[in-house]
Amino acid sequence: MASELLSMTLKAIGIVRSEIKQPTKRDGEKVISDIVVNDDLTEALDGLEESSHIVVLYWMHQAVSGEVPLKIHPRGKQGLPLLGLFATRTPNRPNRIGIATVRLLERQGNILRVEGLDAIGGTPVIDIKPYIPGYDSVADTKVPPWITNR
Amino acid sequence: MASELLSMTLKAIGIVRSEIKQPTKRDGEKVISDIVVNDDLTEALDGLEESSHIVVLYWMHQAVSGEVPLKIHPRGKQGLPLLGLFATRTPNRPNRIGIATVRLLERQGNILRVEGLDAIGGTPVIDIKPYIPGYDSVADTKVPPWITNR
Repeated sequence: MASELLSMTLKAIGIVRSEIKQPTKRDGEKVISDIVVNDDLTEALDGLEESSHIVVLYWMHQAVSGEVPLKIHPRGKQGLPLLGLFATRTPNRPNRIGIATVRLLERQGNILRVEGLDAIGGTPVIDIKPYIPGYDSVADTKVPPWITNR
Repeated sequence: MASELLSMTLKAIGIVRSEIKQPTKRDGEKVISDIVVNDDLTEALDGLEESSHIVVLYWMHQAVSGEVPLKIHPRGKQGLPLLGLFATRTPNRPNRIGIATVRLLERQGNILRVEGLDAIGGTPVIDIKPYIPGYDSVADTKVPPWITNR
């Protein structure tokens, strides 16, 4: 196991170019931003434009580093229940990886224009995957009230 | 940017306990497995049991390490088009992170029993998030034919 842990180091594959300078706590649905993928990976995007939506993994570099609180109120709202961090989408996690399912508006070479990416300008991007309905999505779900009543 | 890159190191927050010993190329929908979360993070799971589905991020430690091919045939099938790796869900990626949206059957302390986790036993888990319909899912999508005709 130790040798596995040593190898769990991420490389940025690109960066977010956006006018958003502060984390938005999820109001960014209609934001348009660009993902500028490293030049040497341009070819690895071929075919992605066949998908209307993509899943973007990014490193939330402005979140708290070091030890994170295990229990929090979602979005810092004291009126919401105190929950374990893994029961929430807080950026302050042991591994600061954010996921966003976004619309792919356009690809030009190594640049992807997307709608709905909740990440500030300068955010390192670590992976891009095609969105697969039925694998990434679930039809019949139960979610806690604090998620539905936003 | 250099200082950001230095800090992009992952810590395992738990491990998959499963009878699957080989990667399955996505037939594992009904597989039942356990996620054994590190003891010291047990409290961070509180409230997760309110969600019927969770998003699990894991490190695909058996994928090819080092340089990965930029273009591949999905699932190694020569009959499928040659695509950029980011247009596919191949485990052989610059950052070997897998995502699975799975049903949470039960939580007992630091152990989550889940259905549909496409990861072999021993896989390091790096994050767990509650699934949020409408944020993680999209109603109206276009996907390439090789995804729908599986």
